[in-house]
Amino acid sequence: MKAEIIAVGTELLLGQVVNTNATFLSEELAGLGIDVYYQSVVGDNPTRLEELLEYADKRSDLIVLCGGLGPTKDDLTKQVTAAHVGQELVQDEVGYQQLMNYFETRQRPMTENNLLQTLVFKDGRALQNTAGLAVGIFYTSAQGKHYLLLPGPPSELKPMFYHQAMPILKKYVQTNEQLISRVMRFYGIGESQLVTDLEDIIAQQTNPTVAPYAKPNEVTLRLTVKTNDEAQGIRQLDLLESRIQERVGAYFYGYGEENTLPQVVVELLREKQKTLTAAESLTGGGFQATLCDTAGVTDVFLGGFVTYSATTKANFLQIDPELLEKYGTVSAECVEAMATQARAMVDTDLAIALSGVAGPKELEGQPVGTTWIALATKDNVISHCYHFPRDRNYIRKSAVMAAFDLIRKELLK
Amino acid sequence: MKAEIIAVGTELLLGQVVNTNATFLSEELAGLGIDVYYQSVVGDNPTRLEELLEYADKRSDLIVLCGGLGPTKDDLTKQVTAAHVGQELVQDEVGYQQLMNYFETRQRPMTENNLLQTLVFKDGRALQNTAGLAVGIFYTSAQGKHYLLLPGPPSELKPMFYHQAMPILKKYVQTNEQLISRVMRFYGIGESQLVTDLEDIIAQQTNPTVAPYAKPNEVTLRLTVKTNDEAQGIRQLDLLESRIQERVGAYFYGYGEENTLPQVVVELLREKQKTLTAAESLTGGGFQATLCDTAGVTDVFLGGFVTYSATTKANFLQIDPELLEKYGTVSAECVEAMATQARAMVDTDLAIALSGVAGPKELEGQPVGTTWIALATKDNVISHCYHFPRDRNYIRKSAVMAAFDLIRKELLK
Repeated sequence: MKAEIIAVGTELLLGQVVNTNATFLSEELAGLGIDVYYQSVVGDNPTRLEELLEYADKRSDLIVLCGGLGPTKDDLTKQVTAAHVGQELVQDEVGYQQLMNYFETRQRPMTENNLLQTLVFKDGRALQNTAGLAVGIFYTSAQGKHYLLLPGPPSELKPMFYHQAMPILKKYVQTNEQLISRVMRFYGIGESQLVTDLEDIIAQQTNPTVAPYAKPNEVTLRLTVKTNDEAQGIRQLDLLESRIQERVGAYFYGYGEENTLPQVVVELLREKQKTLTAAESLTGGGFQATLCDTAGVTDVFLGGFVTYSATTKANFLQIDPELLEKYGTVSAECVEAMATQARAMVDTDLAIALSGVAGPKELEGQPVGTTWIALATKDNVISHCYHFPRDRNYIRKSAVMAAFDLIRKELLK
Repeated sequence: MKAEIIAVGTELLLGQVVNTNATFLSEELAGLGIDVYYQSVVGDNPTRLEELLEYADKRSDLIVLCGGLGPTKDDLTKQVTAAHVGQELVQDEVGYQQLMNYFETRQRPMTENNLLQTLVFKDGRALQNTAGLAVGIFYTSAQGKHYLLLPGPPSELKPMFYHQAMPILKKYVQTNEQLISRVMRFYGIGESQLVTDLEDIIAQQTNPTVAPYAKPNEVTLRLTVKTNDEAQGIRQLDLLESRIQERVGAYFYGYGEENTLPQVVVELLREKQKTLTAAESLTGGGFQATLCDTAGVTDVFLGGFVTYSATTKANFLQIDPELLEKYGTVSAECVEAMATQARAMVDTDLAIALSGVAGPKELEGQPVGTTWIALATKDNVISHCYHFPRDRNYIRKSAVMAAFDLIRKELLK
């Protein structure tokens, strides 16, 4: 199946927004075995969009449009595409109810233009939006061309693609062959090192293939096999994975495109019935906020401290100000005291403490990026020093991930 | 002048690389007053590139191609474009010398394929590459169409664009006009409501234009004027802005593409020399982490509490467990006590407290999304109830932003 992606939005043509949707969709469609031959961007202009749709009809079997499903006058993707394929626009009942509920719970008046968002093609399939109000559309024309209309915001587009569009597309891919994918996630090793360590494996592989992707603070490997025998495909992936685990298994932490290191840690804590607290300086609450992003965290986390200054370190955690004075707040002594005290005060199994230099200026004579992390258990406390590169934001995020990695290793002991 | 951008490279169509070149070029061309009407991506395939060039000739005056100028078999942008416009490819002398020097100083053998990189159109202009070996090309056809060929790596494309292409393009832009933009940021009003309130203003405007853009938890308006008199352009924007402020000024919080509500709040706190603490339940540290994302926060924030459970609310903040029992933890009484106690304990000017139901299940008989936020000052404490929609993540982010909005309003009193 030949596909193309059309992103609609003047903000893309003005260079105000990067077209990450095209990248995401291209990667996912490739994973389904669908060949993307073109990506295009066009502004909020009906004539030019119509023109592009005419070209697209000549060269593609699947036309994926994203953006322009919203409530404003600029949003015209549905209207133009409906006219192009000769479909009438009708209200989607589920989307309409969701819209009404949204404004009711917010106690705000619903303006008329919002109704545009819940229009769908009369003979198309409505794709529900779990993260927004604009309903998506899948439609197959009498000529057998498929049209997939998705919302522009990535936070809406991604779940709609995964949960609504993907199952439909899978049915249309013209082959008995299926692609089976397995995503392996690694923390603590860079992409170039991982690729070097696996160089011969990656070079040899044609089926299954191995594709590395660098993400912020981690690397994933996507193993993909094309097969018409599912059981055999899975055996091939198992074999390939075991070769990979042999070399870089020390950095492997979990499977799955939407998995995260914090999620793995929360699952481990629940499984082992351990509780956790935290005392954060450098990260200002970022570790605990990340922890609380995971549902089910209430079983393992009761609360913790943000001790951003020396004063709050001393007052909240009853740390001797002389210790802070003597060793400084960016030191093994400081984070070990923070972790030990926090654990004792909240009476948990584990406590993590983070302190460091986020910048822009150095602190206590230590360069930007210097980070100390301690982990206290009932009988012990350990600490590590890290030197994270780049800017404030990256340093803080890296510190949070390093803390989760420390806890994971402790729990697996 | 109407322009379009064609990025060439199969890696873009596989979703392995984000097309940031299109974003960069679009923004720069808009700055020159050149209208970009299309962006396209095509793989390393001569037939499909030739087809795209035919479309481009029909609809654009300037065609910017990027990528595919390198030494490998995949790199065919020059060859295909040369054939398309009927130009012979010849060696560029300056580029050839640079290539020879490169391999000489590195003491590596130069393989034949490298010579492809220094080919240029016989009647075109060579654009030298200060960061790589592939020479760029600018060419104007007998039909008056302009072709600009740039290398794919952003580190090569950007200097070549700024230093070589821009001076040429400026001569061709048939105008002294420039674009001046102003971004206004709003919190507390949805995109559809904002657009409704400003409907006639947006509809009337052709120059300056008003473009709304929804971002998570906020909306921005970009005001853009095309002018050949900078002072007059700024006056036009001022006039337009004052009409907008009259209607929706209550929701306006600041200017600029990269500004944020937390940044505005930290600046206000510093300006007014006020300090702040927080006690977070629902948001698990997310408010404080967001606060600490801003450099300079050390002057206004010493630390705070993550009181995720009733136990830590009682223990950390010395709140009477009977109060929590009687009113529940998702209540005005609870957040007011949290804010009052936190403020007193850290001895700050202000304290914010957040509690609510993040889901997935309801809590204390209250539905998912119910959120209470309190703000304590030395003499007073106020609280508000919110009902945020959608998922855990969205509810928590919305609560953090609502808290910043409360503080901003208090500081502006």
